[in-house]
Amino acid sequence: MSFIEDYKKAFLIHLEKSIVKTEPENLYAPMHYILGLEGKRIRPVLTLMAADLFGTDYKKALHAALAVEVFHNFSLVHDDIMDNAPLRRGKQTVHSKWNTNTAILSGDAMLIIAYQLFENYKPTIFQELAKLFSKTALEVCEGQQLDMDFESRNDVNSEQYLQMIKYKTAVLVGAALQMGAIVAETSEENKKLVYDFGIQLGLAFQLQDDYLDAFGDSSFGKQIGGDILENKKTMLYLKALELSDNELKKELFLLYNNTEENPDKVEKVKKIFVETQAADFVRKEIEKYTQNSLDSLEKLDIIEDKKLEIRKFAIDLMNRKI
Amino acid sequence: MSFIEDYKKAFLIHLEKSIVKTEPENLYAPMHYILGLEGKRIRPVLTLMAADLFGTDYKKALHAALAVEVFHNFSLVHDDIMDNAPLRRGKQTVHSKWNTNTAILSGDAMLIIAYQLFENYKPTIFQELAKLFSKTALEVCEGQQLDMDFESRNDVNSEQYLQMIKYKTAVLVGAALQMGAIVAETSEENKKLVYDFGIQLGLAFQLQDDYLDAFGDSSFGKQIGGDILENKKTMLYLKALELSDNELKKELFLLYNNTEENPDKVEKVKKIFVETQAADFVRKEIEKYTQNSLDSLEKLDIIEDKKLEIRKFAIDLMNRKI
Repeated sequence: MSFIEDYKKAFLIHLEKSIVKTEPENLYAPMHYILGLEGKRIRPVLTLMAADLFGTDYKKALHAALAVEVFHNFSLVHDDIMDNAPLRRGKQTVHSKWNTNTAILSGDAMLIIAYQLFENYKPTIFQELAKLFSKTALEVCEGQQLDMDFESRNDVNSEQYLQMIKYKTAVLVGAALQMGAIVAETSEENKKLVYDFGIQLGLAFQLQDDYLDAFGDSSFGKQIGGDILENKKTMLYLKALELSDNELKKELFLLYNNTEENPDKVEKVKKIFVETQAADFVRKEIEKYTQNSLDSLEKLDIIEDKKLEIRKFAIDLMNRKI
Repeated sequence: MSFIEDYKKAFLIHLEKSIVKTEPENLYAPMHYILGLEGKRIRPVLTLMAADLFGTDYKKALHAALAVEVFHNFSLVHDDIMDNAPLRRGKQTVHSKWNTNTAILSGDAMLIIAYQLFENYKPTIFQELAKLFSKTALEVCEGQQLDMDFESRNDVNSEQYLQMIKYKTAVLVGAALQMGAIVAETSEENKKLVYDFGIQLGLAFQLQDDYLDAFGDSSFGKQIGGDILENKKTMLYLKALELSDNELKKELFLLYNNTEENPDKVEKVKKIFVETQAADFVRKEIEKYTQNSLDSLEKLDIIEDKKLEIRKFAIDLMNRKI
């Protein structure tokens, strides 16, 4: 998919020349560091893709794409503090490499810089972008809060989990796409549809992440069952609890709450996920959200060729096995 | 000064009815808590005052005034984490009352909500407010970073200190006033002058804070010499180092770097501040910045009566003894 690579390349060049401030060093060095880590850059690519989709030179959307990526990295820096995570994309997290104070403050500065990037657009577009951005950013904070709250709760249901991943992950995918649509000044209907496409794709993607963590292909060297070992209450776990009889429920609960090492834990939990048909359920949910996203795409009032490109992108994304 | 009280009252009513969201509780309760603490509300009052000054109903500026206050409180919440401060305005800080993660995340949400408050204005005003706000917010972050950097450095000079307090404190005072001017849609020249008035007043205010901490009136029960006991490198300290001969320099340096208890420390340091004429210097600087601020005020193209009000406010502020 060379056009995706083109977007990514243009984005990286733009990043390089836009985020240039260096002093005070302790404020800006962490920003350059985290933004420079290798990544798929899915969100900014989606912004550029959407601008192109609606018939505008995608380069016009570079500032908005960068805002999305800077915001995403702000949220990684602060989330990593909260999750006490030592590594991000295989490298030290900002708070590990520097310290927590530096990570808080340079994160704050990144959030502000994301807003500043919208200043490159005229007032009406600026306001539309900033409004969408604020709404989305606040939802991402709410999603992170729910995620933290859920860790210490034992009464979370699968509906609430879905709401959490919608806020924590999917809304930014929807917003990234809608920002491209805003820059392209397309119709309100198109803006809404492309946002829905993103939300549904984002949900499918996150549920697939949960699914593959337990049932993915281990032949690429990926560790299987990381979420299970960390007792993460994913959709698989929550749905299995909901679908199981009392005995299985108890077994699953004990497997997750027993602090002793259990070498069979991953296999035992996966067996319950399959037996309760939670695995089936999640697979069907992924298909449902993928199909929903493609339906929204179909309704877009754009030329068919463009639809094919983005449809292919979505299907490729959902066909991953790891 | 009843008109100031009117502004404050209108502001508090507006705050009460504008910040109403409550869920997720761990995200929003800290926000209500910190915004509800008693305070002088100087910054939002200045925004309202400026709108009035330029002939607009001050109520139109309530959203902008609230944005300034919400931002100020965001910075307090995050700064208190970084400074490891247990108390704020005599009450528990957010990270002490809840925890660091909650303080980080609800601080983030406050920064976003501050931006959202500008959405109440039309696109051109929105962009002008948000641009000023972003520039100011980033400077405040830079000021906080410099402040933290200075703690571990022994080569900071008084010029650099002035730059730090300008960013950490004065720019928000200038911006608070300019936002009122933006809402009032006054001339570019007036916007610039009222900003300068705020910067100069902010600098005078912060230097006076430093000065009164050592030389203020203790008869109101305020502890004198808190900065000295904490070895804070204030303007008095930095200037005393610059103005002293080698012997005094060494004595002052030792007083600040000796970890043993010294009951005479405050008196000894104050004596050096006086002997080196650092105290005189700072007093003159305060007068200079106050005068500069009044000069900017004088140049404003508004009716004389309005100038008198704000002049009185500034002079009252600078006449405090504690």
